[in-house]
Amino acid sequence: MVDVVRIGLVGCGFMGKAHSLSYRNLEAVHWPKLPRIELTRVADAIESVAREGAERYGWQSAVDDWRSVTRGTDIDLVDIVTPNDLHAEAAIDAAEHGKFVLCEKPLANSLEAAQRMYDAVAKAGVGNQVNFVFRKWPAVVLAKRLIDDGHIGAVTRFRGWYFVEDALDANQPVGWRFDKTRAGSGSIGDIGSHVIDLARYLAGDLSAVLARLETVVPVRPVRGSSKVLRVAVDDAADILLRFASGASGSIQTGWAAAGHRNDIGFEVAGDEGAIRFGWERANELEWYRAGAQDGLSGFQTIVVGPDHPGGDLLWPAAGLGLGYGDAFLISLGDAVNAAAGSAVSAPSFLDGLRVCEVTDAALRSADTGTWISLPARSHTGA
Amino acid sequence: MVDVVRIGLVGCGFMGKAHSLSYRNLEAVHWPKLPRIELTRVADAIESVAREGAERYGWQSAVDDWRSVTRGTDIDLVDIVTPNDLHAEAAIDAAEHGKFVLCEKPLANSLEAAQRMYDAVAKAGVGNQVNFVFRKWPAVVLAKRLIDDGHIGAVTRFRGWYFVEDALDANQPVGWRFDKTRAGSGSIGDIGSHVIDLARYLAGDLSAVLARLETVVPVRPVRGSSKVLRVAVDDAADILLRFASGASGSIQTGWAAAGHRNDIGFEVAGDEGAIRFGWERANELEWYRAGAQDGLSGFQTIVVGPDHPGGDLLWPAAGLGLGYGDAFLISLGDAVNAAAGSAVSAPSFLDGLRVCEVTDAALRSADTGTWISLPARSHTGA
Amino acid sequence: MVDVVRIGLVGCGFMGKAHSLSYRNLEAVHWPKLPRIELTRVADAIESVAREGAERYGWQSAVDDWRSVTRGTDIDLVDIVTPNDLHAEAAIDAAEHGKFVLCEKPLANSLEAAQRMYDAVAKAGVGNQVNFVFRKWPAVVLAKRLIDDGHIGAVTRFRGWYFVEDALDANQPVGWRFDKTRAGSGSIGDIGSHVIDLARYLAGDLSAVLARLETVVPVRPVRGSSKVLRVAVDDAADILLRFASGASGSIQTGWAAAGHRNDIGFEVAGDEGAIRFGWERANELEWYRAGAQDGLSGFQTIVVGPDHPGGDLLWPAAGLGLGYGDAFLISLGDAVNAAAGSAVSAPSFLDGLRVCEVTDAALRSADTGTWISLPARSHTGA
Amino acid sequence: MVDVVRIGLVGCGFMGKAHSLSYRNLEAVHWPKLPRIELTRVADAIESVAREGAERYGWQSAVDDWRSVTRGTDIDLVDIVTPNDLHAEAAIDAAEHGKFVLCEKPLANSLEAAQRMYDAVAKAGVGNQVNFVFRKWPAVVLAKRLIDDGHIGAVTRFRGWYFVEDALDANQPVGWRFDKTRAGSGSIGDIGSHVIDLARYLAGDLSAVLARLETVVPVRPVRGSSKVLRVAVDDAADILLRFASGASGSIQTGWAAAGHRNDIGFEVAGDEGAIRFGWERANELEWYRAGAQDGLSGFQTIVVGPDHPGGDLLWPAAGLGLGYGDAFLISLGDAVNAAAGSAVSAPSFLDGLRVCEVTDAALRSADTGTWISLPARSHTGA
Repeated sequence: MVDVVRIGLVGCGFMGKAHSLSYRNLEAVHWPKLPRIELTRVADAIESVAREGAERYGWQSAVDDWRSVTRGTDIDLVDIVTPNDLHAEAAIDAAEHGKFVLCEKPLANSLEAAQRMYDAVAKAGVGNQVNFVFRKWPAVVLAKRLIDDGHIGAVTRFRGWYFVEDALDANQPVGWRFDKTRAGSGSIGDIGSHVIDLARYLAGDLSAVLARLETVVPVRPVRGSSKVLRVAVDDAADILLRFASGASGSIQTGWAAAGHRNDIGFEVAGDEGAIRFGWERANELEWYRAGAQDGLSGFQTIVVGPDHPGGDLLWPAAGLGLGYGDAFLISLGDAVNAAAGSAVSAPSFLDGLRVCEVTDAALRSADTGTWISLPARSHTGA
Repeated sequence: MVDVVRIGLVGCGFMGKAHSLSYRNLEAVHWPKLPRIELTRVADAIESVAREGAERYGWQSAVDDWRSVTRGTDIDLVDIVTPNDLHAEAAIDAAEHGKFVLCEKPLANSLEAAQRMYDAVAKAGVGNQVNFVFRKWPAVVLAKRLIDDGHIGAVTRFRGWYFVEDALDANQPVGWRFDKTRAGSGSIGDIGSHVIDLARYLAGDLSAVLARLETVVPVRPVRGSSKVLRVAVDDAADILLRFASGASGSIQTGWAAAGHRNDIGFEVAGDEGAIRFGWERANELEWYRAGAQDGLSGFQTIVVGPDHPGGDLLWPAAGLGLGYGDAFLISLGDAVNAAAGSAVSAPSFLDGLRVCEVTDAALRSADTGTWISLPARSHTGA
Repeated sequence: MVDVVRIGLVGCGFMGKAHSLSYRNLEAVHWPKLPRIELTRVADAIESVAREGAERYGWQSAVDDWRSVTRGTDIDLVDIVTPNDLHAEAAIDAAEHGKFVLCEKPLANSLEAAQRMYDAVAKAGVGNQVNFVFRKWPAVVLAKRLIDDGHIGAVTRFRGWYFVEDALDANQPVGWRFDKTRAGSGSIGDIGSHVIDLARYLAGDLSAVLARLETVVPVRPVRGSSKVLRVAVDDAADILLRFASGASGSIQTGWAAAGHRNDIGFEVAGDEGAIRFGWERANELEWYRAGAQDGLSGFQTIVVGPDHPGGDLLWPAAGLGLGYGDAFLISLGDAVNAAAGSAVSAPSFLDGLRVCEVTDAALRSADTGTWISLPARSHTGA
Repeated sequence: MVDVVRIGLVGCGFMGKAHSLSYRNLEAVHWPKLPRIELTRVADAIESVAREGAERYGWQSAVDDWRSVTRGTDIDLVDIVTPNDLHAEAAIDAAEHGKFVLCEKPLANSLEAAQRMYDAVAKAGVGNQVNFVFRKWPAVVLAKRLIDDGHIGAVTRFRGWYFVEDALDANQPVGWRFDKTRAGSGSIGDIGSHVIDLARYLAGDLSAVLARLETVVPVRPVRGSSKVLRVAVDDAADILLRFASGASGSIQTGWAAAGHRNDIGFEVAGDEGAIRFGWERANELEWYRAGAQDGLSGFQTIVVGPDHPGGDLLWPAAGLGLGYGDAFLISLGDAVNAAAGSAVSAPSFLDGLRVCEVTDAALRSADTGTWISLPARSHTGA
């Protein structure tokens, strides 16, 4: 295990901000459990963005060519936060140069690219992690523990959703997320990938999916342009799931869901109980155990705090509450520890690949209107 | 319009109780808008049940042969509240004898039976109503009005659900609802039919469905018997909907949904807003209008009261609140008025037939794993 | 025990409706546990109101002189639902004529009148009940049982409230409830008396109170008149409570509480847990037990159903839900049983008197701005 | 306006952590609006704590004598996060040495000390701020704006509360917060001071208070000792408020409130609407406007995001959500700006003094059981 991890960041937009702010506090928060980190270099295709990012967040150098990061001999961990279509090339290059690779979700904008990325890290034997932050969230980790400890019995049903309103206004100009060639898919890959990851994390591998995709708003103006975009990606999706365990499930996503802000959540039902989580009350978990108390059973609201996994990261009392940004403190801390060799990273690129397999199968299912089987797995990467 | 409606009830179980209690108060509640009613006769296959029902609820006579009701010359309105497999014969006989026919939901346990029932009332020219009580509920009628008045823009998505826990305990003996030959289907017909009706009521006719049915608990003991039942009906269902309007939707049902009591609800999303309803807060409706107030938009919780449709039935102040039983006061009041000739009844047998078409298509879809189209309609019966 | 209870109703306004509808279904609902009842006579000062009430609800006769009820030799139970200032005279007359007396809350519009009423029933030895319906409500009775069974440990704090918006509009004409000579007090007696009763029911007798009363809207138009009323009653109140047990508590009321419809609720805290109830989710009770489950404790939401006290009155499944009107089915059922001699009635006039003592002490406290002690009791009437 | 602010921290416990983590990210978050800051020195009475704090959070030097901070010529802003009894001496010394003084809440453990602190900063003419973080919280600032803009009409009632469960376990050893000589008061000063500040912030200066204090658990073991403490501070409080505006209000606090984690909240009622906030849904604000929409009015849930005051600090989408730690980013940012001379600081020591006046009056009121008037103010410091 090394005692310093030198980090390079590829991309400096919204996610660059979230990651940079976390890195700045990472050692102090995890004190004294983390190796020392250095914010060595930030790259952005727009050089001024990289330079401002460096100045603002304390990156030691700024470049416009991401290869200076992926190939930098002074870099241990390459963190990729670009638009989806740039993940593969940077991640593969980083792997080939022996870096630990952390990549924002979804792993790639196509199954083919995801497979190449996974192959690259496998071949290079480098550590790797895909940044599905929600599965790092204390209430979600607690859900996982309750399920694994048998507190809801055998899982029978998973229901997940992610609804936002961002795309409701058909007249608001849109960017790369609506461009199929760059994003690969719409809501299903963007926000749905989080829920697919949660489904796998909480209920195991999938064996088949059936999907219906919608493009509720078919034409949109393009940001920074007078053109309009004929939208080829989904802005709403329904996915039915079959798990390898025999459990069933569903995922619903919406980019134009009126009134929903960042409404991600799930319910996992078992034959003896159930667990519910919703981001609107992100520091709580609802747990139900059937028949636990004669005539007094009901969903109980556990407020996450220092007694719960990850809940001790910041505050000494339950209910003070973590925010969205704090999720990255947990996730990036795990990546740094893994890069230092002191932990196996999860979720890995294999998990990211599995999510892309599901997304890809869902896209094909939506085309054919039929169930698409996923290959049986001798093991799970999760 | 007649000034008295003489009622005969076929069946005297749980629903017989709900209907009987409502009839007893119907005139007083609707005063003075309803014709006089007489509780003329109750039939139950078990004569002692019929006799006790008569004594308890004030039915003037009790019989074990339902034909004494459907053919009684002293009966104007035949109300059928038997198990599903007995609906058709009684309803058709009542129609053939010129009665107004009110039938509990679902209309029948098969599409074929539902079609025969509809044909019978159409041929006989008698008034008819299927007792989907939830679409009579004030908060739901308010939802309908808001939608029709354009308060959420054009409907784009419908999401409905009905989850109960009743069947979670695999060791609890079960009755006719789990018997495919009697019930026709499981949760999809029993509780799902309510949501299908709401989907049609709120978002219009359906053009296609895709379903996945589950039987989470495959073997159950039979009530009043030492046998076990190999369950052939669903205890959980996912249905994807396509509406004739182009809107999309979904319905989920569960009989063994841990922690859910009588959890029926829906969200209707439009391109300018959304509406949400859940039975856990049955006297409230949540309404969202995008951009209505600059930066201040959010779901607002309307507490139903005397200013709202049907909310003036009982209490002079919002929030005092109606209960499940009060739903029947509204629904049966409508039936009596229709039987007296002073109103057209809704939902009609045609609506009930449409719901059975959807259920039937869903069952076929679950078999094939593909989308099943529903015939285009030149008109809606709703 | 007698086998028929003949009922006379004094007053036929909103409460007359609620009571009459319940009486009509009382035997059928409680079947077969209740004696037979007869709706013998209804009185209202406005004869046409009495006549219409009789016709509408099935009272056998209608009179404008309430003495025909209180003194009727064909009456066993006198039920008083008039404005507060008429309770005393009618109740005392009924007692003196040997009737069981059921009286709407608050028992009287002054402590002096309440005392005379209690003395009258005590002297006459007649059964008596004051109609605090909320303490009959299944979720509330369940709360009582949980407390009595030690499920929250020793009670340390009671917090109750009742907020409505009815009086927010200063321009809406008002009736007798705003007239101090008739109502005695404002929100504190009208809606607050319910909460005082719940405080006593759930946490025992009070030993001292301190109150602050407000008249937020000091001048209002009078209904059916061109006059304005200089309002002398409170439309908002804060009451601090000291219980005989040593526990402390508070009650807040508001008639002009913007956004609150029928928002009555309470939280009872103990040294090992807590219980919460709010009418907005009237068929639920929240219960918390500290340390019950290591790290998993949280308020749990019990949905009231047939397993709970009174929850079996109507429906066979939890969550179908009772409404406001159903509360009267429970309360009036108890009164009829008590009148028939088969039960002791609760809450009794002594309970009603105790509530008036609290209200009276609160009014005096608001005048002096100091704590007012309540007499120690050798027993509770509850 | 200076371009660098050199910060010294006095105290390095839980609050030292919260402040230090915020300082580390302060410039990056507020970029580019904040002057440069330096984390110059941290003091803690336990030198090893100071040294570890320096190492962990990046303070350039560590000392055990706070005077090295308050008198350091290399320090511009002294931030005091010690136990309450140490605030005064350090703050006064810092003021006398010309520093900008930021002090954690409550300003002091006695009115006398608070007055001396205020006098010191006034005499020295130094900038000053008391760290009531909740009034900096976006949802709370939005509440203030809505009130000030007339969106609820004239304020008539304020209801605030702060309940935690920390002290429920009577057997858990306790520290300085339960020691009257050090803390000054119990829950009323500790958590209640936050709510008093919110009351003043949202509804203006107070003119009188009446309080009842409780010590539910009278004896407790002392942390790090075999002694027991006879507790002389309150662990629960009820305070009735009278505002200078004529509005009324109440505050309730509890340290041993079973089931409540960090349950701070308020409702402000006006004659045309109301506003509600609770920390359990910290990123939301509920707003009600009476009669705004005919028959459709109801509390609406505004999810705070970049369109709202302070909501743009971190994330570009509503609902991603800030956490407790993020509150300090806002508050400390304001202090740094004020220390640099580019803003007037709020809440100031005068606000902190006003809160102590209320606390002091409440303590006296609890002794006498009577209302205590607060001096009329020609101006507010808020």
